[in-house]
Amino acid sequence: MKRIGVVTSGGDAPGMNAAIRAVARIAYSKNFQVLGFERGWKGLLMNIFKPLTPRSVGGILQLGGTILRTSRCPQFRKREGIRKAAENLALNNVDGLVVIGGNGSFEGALELSKETGILIVGVPATIDNDVFGTDETIGFDTAVNTAVTEIDKIRDTAISHERIFVVEVMGRTRGFLALTVGLTVGAEVILVPEVKCKTESILEIIKENSAKGKRSGIIVAAEGIGDTRKLAKEIEEDTGAEVRLSILGYAQRGGNPTARSRLLASLFANKAIELLSEKKGNRIVGLQKGRITSVELEKSCNTEKPLDLNLLWLANILAT
Amino acid sequence: MKRIGVVTSGGDAPGMNAAIRAVARIAYSKNFQVLGFERGWKGLLMNIFKPLTPRSVGGILQLGGTILRTSRCPQFRKREGIRKAAENLALNNVDGLVVIGGNGSFEGALELSKETGILIVGVPATIDNDVFGTDETIGFDTAVNTAVTEIDKIRDTAISHERIFVVEVMGRTRGFLALTVGLTVGAEVILVPEVKCKTESILEIIKENSAKGKRSGIIVAAEGIGDTRKLAKEIEEDTGAEVRLSILGYAQRGGNPTARSRLLASLFANKAIELLSEKKGNRIVGLQKGRITSVELEKSCNTEKPLDLNLLWLANILAT
Amino acid sequence: MKRIGVVTSGGDAPGMNAAIRAVARIAYSKNFQVLGFERGWKGLLMNIFKPLTPRSVGGILQLGGTILRTSRCPQFRKREGIRKAAENLALNNVDGLVVIGGNGSFEGALELSKETGILIVGVPATIDNDVFGTDETIGFDTAVNTAVTEIDKIRDTAISHERIFVVEVMGRTRGFLALTVGLTVGAEVILVPEVKCKTESILEIIKENSAKGKRSGIIVAAEGIGDTRKLAKEIEEDTGAEVRLSILGYAQRGGNPTARSRLLASLFANKAIELLSEKKGNRIVGLQKGRITSVELEKSCNTEKPLDLNLLWLANILAT
Amino acid sequence: MKRIGVVTSGGDAPGMNAAIRAVARIAYSKNFQVLGFERGWKGLLMNIFKPLTPRSVGGILQLGGTILRTSRCPQFRKREGIRKAAENLALNNVDGLVVIGGNGSFEGALELSKETGILIVGVPATIDNDVFGTDETIGFDTAVNTAVTEIDKIRDTAISHERIFVVEVMGRTRGFLALTVGLTVGAEVILVPEVKCKTESILEIIKENSAKGKRSGIIVAAEGIGDTRKLAKEIEEDTGAEVRLSILGYAQRGGNPTARSRLLASLFANKAIELLSEKKGNRIVGLQKGRITSVELEKSCNTEKPLDLNLLWLANILAT
Repeated sequence: MKRIGVVTSGGDAPGMNAAIRAVARIAYSKNFQVLGFERGWKGLLMNIFKPLTPRSVGGILQLGGTILRTSRCPQFRKREGIRKAAENLALNNVDGLVVIGGNGSFEGALELSKETGILIVGVPATIDNDVFGTDETIGFDTAVNTAVTEIDKIRDTAISHERIFVVEVMGRTRGFLALTVGLTVGAEVILVPEVKCKTESILEIIKENSAKGKRSGIIVAAEGIGDTRKLAKEIEEDTGAEVRLSILGYAQRGGNPTARSRLLASLFANKAIELLSEKKGNRIVGLQKGRITSVELEKSCNTEKPLDLNLLWLANILAT
Repeated sequence: MKRIGVVTSGGDAPGMNAAIRAVARIAYSKNFQVLGFERGWKGLLMNIFKPLTPRSVGGILQLGGTILRTSRCPQFRKREGIRKAAENLALNNVDGLVVIGGNGSFEGALELSKETGILIVGVPATIDNDVFGTDETIGFDTAVNTAVTEIDKIRDTAISHERIFVVEVMGRTRGFLALTVGLTVGAEVILVPEVKCKTESILEIIKENSAKGKRSGIIVAAEGIGDTRKLAKEIEEDTGAEVRLSILGYAQRGGNPTARSRLLASLFANKAIELLSEKKGNRIVGLQKGRITSVELEKSCNTEKPLDLNLLWLANILAT
Repeated sequence: MKRIGVVTSGGDAPGMNAAIRAVARIAYSKNFQVLGFERGWKGLLMNIFKPLTPRSVGGILQLGGTILRTSRCPQFRKREGIRKAAENLALNNVDGLVVIGGNGSFEGALELSKETGILIVGVPATIDNDVFGTDETIGFDTAVNTAVTEIDKIRDTAISHERIFVVEVMGRTRGFLALTVGLTVGAEVILVPEVKCKTESILEIIKENSAKGKRSGIIVAAEGIGDTRKLAKEIEEDTGAEVRLSILGYAQRGGNPTARSRLLASLFANKAIELLSEKKGNRIVGLQKGRITSVELEKSCNTEKPLDLNLLWLANILAT
Repeated sequence: MKRIGVVTSGGDAPGMNAAIRAVARIAYSKNFQVLGFERGWKGLLMNIFKPLTPRSVGGILQLGGTILRTSRCPQFRKREGIRKAAENLALNNVDGLVVIGGNGSFEGALELSKETGILIVGVPATIDNDVFGTDETIGFDTAVNTAVTEIDKIRDTAISHERIFVVEVMGRTRGFLALTVGLTVGAEVILVPEVKCKTESILEIIKENSAKGKRSGIIVAAEGIGDTRKLAKEIEEDTGAEVRLSILGYAQRGGNPTARSRLLASLFANKAIELLSEKKGNRIVGLQKGRITSVELEKSCNTEKPLDLNLLWLANILAT
């Protein structure tokens, strides 16, 4: 192993820069050269990169976003795209590639690995926390805290106006973000795509709460559950309460990473370089049972990560 | 003057609690009793209040929302509503009333003042900053900083993905919030209801920026300008850039007040009690030319506060 | 099991209120009554408590500190103190006791358990993270993030003035807080009591960094390493660099808990009530290998929790 | 006017970068070239500078510190230093100089202005807010909010432990920061160098509060009042209360500037360039009576800015 590439792909997540920094510095300590490919897969396709040195990654640890930039790149997923990327990696004598991203990025990485002999290691970084093979992804803790801080503020208005707020959080098709956020803000109701919840059940909870003297409430809904606007309207019409919808936006994807997202980024990067220096590839690194470990890339791509429904049950008790 | 009432009305704003605390404690120092009417005008209509003492307002200085709660109350604005409120004030021997709120609350206060002999002083508290007679309202600085913090985060994603973001901020029909936020986040374009801006002009700026090498951008739009979703779509279709819409929600109305919102709350409350102790009423207090002052309630209600368009001009130069 | 007590003892930690809320609500769901003893062991000694109901613990989830208050109570540790506390618990028909605190509190709990038949479960909550039997304590993540946020700010001044900053963080006699904070702020040097580090080694690192062009630096030092003022002076005198000392204070112990501290509080409380309802006592709950578990109280008290020195090694590479 | 210089000098303050950006971009809009001298006066002495263009100041608006760096430079204040700086300015055809800093920087600027014919305009930026000629300096609002946020956290511990905290804030020899911070955190006692306060009076207030049931308290003390460690000890010994000292450190000088600090930076820079383009120099810009204005540099240097003692009086009433 002499030279490795690193790329950030798909949606950005807070801590990606911490991961880039850690990859560059740990690789340097093992005498690897590091090339940073820019704009996600596009950089591999178009052979756009910059060398990353310990000094060039200074001062980025605490920054949101990614200094390598990222993009969606549909051409990459076509046969010619993959082949072109493989050619460019060979052209630059890149022996190993670290892919920092989420499921979509790892699927691309899997296809690329089939086309080229170079070793590929995935570093899971996405606010959605939906990657099989790791209990937590880089950026998840930051996004959770960003959402929690915002909902704590919305709670002020909810109480003052005695209103119900439906708060939509991100998470794509999954409920990891909504569940942790909902539990930690003390949401009266948490709606995730993994568990169908009839509108009647929601209405019933609101009425029970009202009977107990709880005149305001927070419903945290994953974006994956469908039309939250319609839901808010239905609740308002049925209960007669004032109901407002608040869609937490892209701020969930940015901001300075929390300590935990920075720590995971450092630990994951360390493991990724360790794997590459042992000539192991086609794996993603992860946190499992409190330890840094790795699983096969293909297994990660083909397995759905389960949502811990015990947390949902606990959240319901806590919101009594 | 023996006994005064205090009420928070209309939309909540961070710093209302700081104002309630200051009213209660300053009034106490002048040997006034203070009654806190609950849920806005509804509390006056229904005669629901609690005594406020220096101790009972302890620990609320830094809290968002309002411990007196607030509501919209359409019945109040009818003749019988006003009359009922006046009766309740008389019944409780209330000689003076401090109304903490925005334009809508002050219009209600004006009508009430015509029906009753008691002295009314308005304390401007709204994140919209649209009250004539004061350069700044309680809560405005907090809302600005909340929006700025969120947009700083969105900027991370904008740069990483080389996207344009349209960010909608609150402000009802006016552009005060959008203008200050836009200038202080360095928005490439600021859209306020006070200045019509053709979509073509926006497209032109984006294209100029792109030519200069600025591949991402933030457009801050006041909610009062109309359909931001349509705008985002038009920009995407015309420029071919990736465009995303983010609507900053109710978090702008909550949260711990900034030091400045707390300071204004204290100074305004002090002036309000000073006016009442001098038997002056039917005024709102405010900050003008750097000093705490007051204007007639009626004048405040009937005059539109001008937006400083020089700031918009400056913002455009700064976003070069 | 009919009635349980809960007490917060020792230094406060963010998330204690989240734990109190969770204990009260989960206990309620199992038909237990809950008494909250006030001011730590003092409340048990003096029989001062208040009933905790699902409603009375509403609105505290996000608050720092502890609504039950806490104190140091030297009398408790004497024989008569323990006996008096045991009497009061019996007097109130308390069958189980949840002790929320750190090592000192658990030592008290151990002594109490020897004097009384009631079941005691410890819930580890301390910013020091020095409790054997759990990988993480309630409040640790919050304190880490508070320190990181402050040091990110100090870094601004360090770079602008090209200065070295020695930043002292809390942690009593241990280095858990300093190590995680140091790694996640990218400190050039991390000093913990567990690893002796000669001043010469520190000076050497600073000189190497200076040779590489790093003109500023952050040294994160645990309070347990000794006199940081002297250290700062020595570095200044030897290297000729401008060196400043900043002692991060009690803000590390307060503030709204992070999502993770709230989550741990909820999970730990849940486990504690589960143990009590199974008539198991004299244990502390904890997070081990990613799972919520428990260990014997006595073992926790008598075993020193090891510091992960691999993290220190990694931090040094990352600060290259 | 063809070419202007800009320098940041003395202690750094949040918003200096916002001011540099605004100076560069507004100057550009008037066809001026801008040179940024590095490391404060040292850069003028040693002729180290970089050209600032609209693009090169992109992305710095929200950053703490100063990209031009700053330093203390005792040589500058000697005759030869001033002369050398004047020569370098002439050598580079610099017609005007914008000095961003506080009183110390302005005294240097005054001496320089006597040695050279070029026009000098001061832009007040210091967290101490002690510059005559402006009601507020760039960075003051940020530092106030940083301190307030920290003290809000310390309050959690104060209440939980029923302790008195003496919190020392910055401000050099003056009490502007301590006064605004103390009022907005609701400090029970505020100590500023401008008002001598006997220890007996402080003890009396604490005992009165204790009699009223206030068992915890915050004493905000400016660093300029002298030995706060001794004060804390005296209070503890006399009252028997638990007293802790917390010295808020350099975090007060860093961090992302608040919206207000950014706004002031933009408005001040705009006025500075306006003055230079009108060939007016030897003035500092400022905020007075709510308007952006300017005063003579010499007058600013030779006049002490008064502290508003009415605020102290109000704070005492509010802390009842």
